[in-house]
Amino acid sequence: MSADKIVLALDGMGGDHAPEVVVNGADIARERYPGTSFLLFGDPARLKPLVDKRKGLAKVLEIVPAEDAVLAEDKPSFALRRRRKSSMWLAVDAVAQGRADTVVSAGNTGALLAISMFAMRMVEGAHRPALASFLPTARGETVMLDLGANLECDAENLAEFAVMGSVFAQVLLGLDKPKVGLLNVGSEELKGHEELRQAAAWLRRNGSPVDCHGFIEGNDIGTGNIDVVVTDGFTGNVALKAIEGTAKLYTQFVRDAFRTSTFAKIGYLFASGAWVKLRKRVDPRRYNGGVFLGLDGVCVKSHGGTDALGFAYAIGVAVDLVRYEYKNKLVEGLGKLHQVISTAEAPTTPALQASGGGE
Amino acid sequence: MSADKIVLALDGMGGDHAPEVVVNGADIARERYPGTSFLLFGDPARLKPLVDKRKGLAKVLEIVPAEDAVLAEDKPSFALRRRRKSSMWLAVDAVAQGRADTVVSAGNTGALLAISMFAMRMVEGAHRPALASFLPTARGETVMLDLGANLECDAENLAEFAVMGSVFAQVLLGLDKPKVGLLNVGSEELKGHEELRQAAAWLRRNGSPVDCHGFIEGNDIGTGNIDVVVTDGFTGNVALKAIEGTAKLYTQFVRDAFRTSTFAKIGYLFASGAWVKLRKRVDPRRYNGGVFLGLDGVCVKSHGGTDALGFAYAIGVAVDLVRYEYKNKLVEGLGKLHQVISTAEAPTTPALQASGGGE
Repeated sequence: MSADKIVLALDGMGGDHAPEVVVNGADIARERYPGTSFLLFGDPARLKPLVDKRKGLAKVLEIVPAEDAVLAEDKPSFALRRRRKSSMWLAVDAVAQGRADTVVSAGNTGALLAISMFAMRMVEGAHRPALASFLPTARGETVMLDLGANLECDAENLAEFAVMGSVFAQVLLGLDKPKVGLLNVGSEELKGHEELRQAAAWLRRNGSPVDCHGFIEGNDIGTGNIDVVVTDGFTGNVALKAIEGTAKLYTQFVRDAFRTSTFAKIGYLFASGAWVKLRKRVDPRRYNGGVFLGLDGVCVKSHGGTDALGFAYAIGVAVDLVRYEYKNKLVEGLGKLHQVISTAEAPTTPALQASGGGE
Repeated sequence: MSADKIVLALDGMGGDHAPEVVVNGADIARERYPGTSFLLFGDPARLKPLVDKRKGLAKVLEIVPAEDAVLAEDKPSFALRRRRKSSMWLAVDAVAQGRADTVVSAGNTGALLAISMFAMRMVEGAHRPALASFLPTARGETVMLDLGANLECDAENLAEFAVMGSVFAQVLLGLDKPKVGLLNVGSEELKGHEELRQAAAWLRRNGSPVDCHGFIEGNDIGTGNIDVVVTDGFTGNVALKAIEGTAKLYTQFVRDAFRTSTFAKIGYLFASGAWVKLRKRVDPRRYNGGVFLGLDGVCVKSHGGTDALGFAYAIGVAVDLVRYEYKNKLVEGLGKLHQVISTAEAPTTPALQASGGGE
């Protein structure tokens, strides 16, 4: 597969530093993914001067006027109903109408989810979308989902998320058989809400499309022993933000420690190369690009506060999902899952014989 | 208040390094809290030689024989029913029977909870116990609960946890008006399970015994802006372990970074004082001592893998809870809470007038 024919729809007005970051990010991505072309939605008066400065980009990018923009403070339902002419709505719609292969926005997450669900609908076999992202681990990267699209999930939702995450890890991380774990609590007897137990039971059956390693705990996320961490959107959102908060806190602790004495400050200087390396390893831009999985179309959400490099990473995720046919693989995996579920739920033959013996 | 009359029941056989760590921890605590005396439950053949070596401790400690011990792999229900003669059961029972003021165990968490609930019962006004602990923050320490005692919590449970945590922070951190936050997800429209909204509504009413700052997110835990983080046991357990896992991961990242070059290694040596300081700040022993709140008695759970210093910290938590009359303050706070709840739920006077006008 090549990226030759991929058309990306970009929300030119979404994010804290739009439209500059969007245009600059597209320019970086253009060099990385030759042949890709862009539909850039937004205010031409603001977009055109930025694009015109980048000759290479101007050749592969078309500005599509959008007279409105979704604001960071817009409620999802408001954006869905009242921002029909916004850059976000039009960019998503371009995918829904088949004029673009994928959309990337750094705008309002809730609005992007609501609009994408409405315009793209769910893919065959998926009931709810999930927000997925990468997290750094001791061994590399782990995919975690749902990070906040659904507060409450039933067993079928969780099992579908497992398939979405597994195919995502196959495509994005190049893994053959990603190891999937369901986030749960430790104590044996307390183990799990019923929906977690049911999801795990399905995913472990013969014919399951994922390699299910059962239940994992919060401290397993960072080890990298598991490639895909599945949870409901409430728990996932809290855990993700707790992880981000802890990373920030420890960075501050380390910095504080190196300010305590002259010796420490000298040590800091000697170790400056180590700091650069460390920062690169946990660079949030590398983990930029949350993706709404389960939609009948690829929608990538970039962090609102990201810079051009981060936005280019998000574009890269979108390109890979299209290039390696994420959607087709997902539909196939979900089909296998529902086959497993329906087999598990059908009355077994012996039971039928036993009850039907009299007739 | 003085600690003169405090009697501590210790589970001599609980934890990875029992009984050595228990005896050594008691010896450290004995010096810190003069006048405190100990009932040490366990196998005299193993305990006596250890105690006899510590003359000062031997004077204030009585060994109470227990012929059995709860194992780490025991299910809570098994320990509850079949380990009646264990050191853990007898130590908890000493508090229930009024022979000791508080109990400390480094043993099986689930078993300790089950036995404590059974033997001590709930305190007046509390329906479910919560496991609480301290977490390091940018400003000091935050109390978080429930960390795993209850997988599902209703609004009343959460509101009671808020009171338990608030009184705990008053007593242990010396705060006058601890700031309480309810852990939730970010998006405005998605905000919260119904039980979280109801709990927040009660806690914000006039007469509420806590200073409720409403909803917080996972990344607010580490900032220290909130003193008490309230959540259900499932979310709390996952978040706590995600935080611990991230702390471990970052420690490894920092260590790896300093191994990358000779310069970095030299920097590491110069900065060794900074490392000591950093390690002290995040020393898990300082955060040792999860507490089951809401029981009609004080039960402190030490980490199973802790050393003597960590066990002494756990004893310190138990001593402070008794010394500063945690239980009485909790009963008072819970009384106020239930007053608020019953007022909120009672039919309002205008409604009564409207419907009763005809008679």
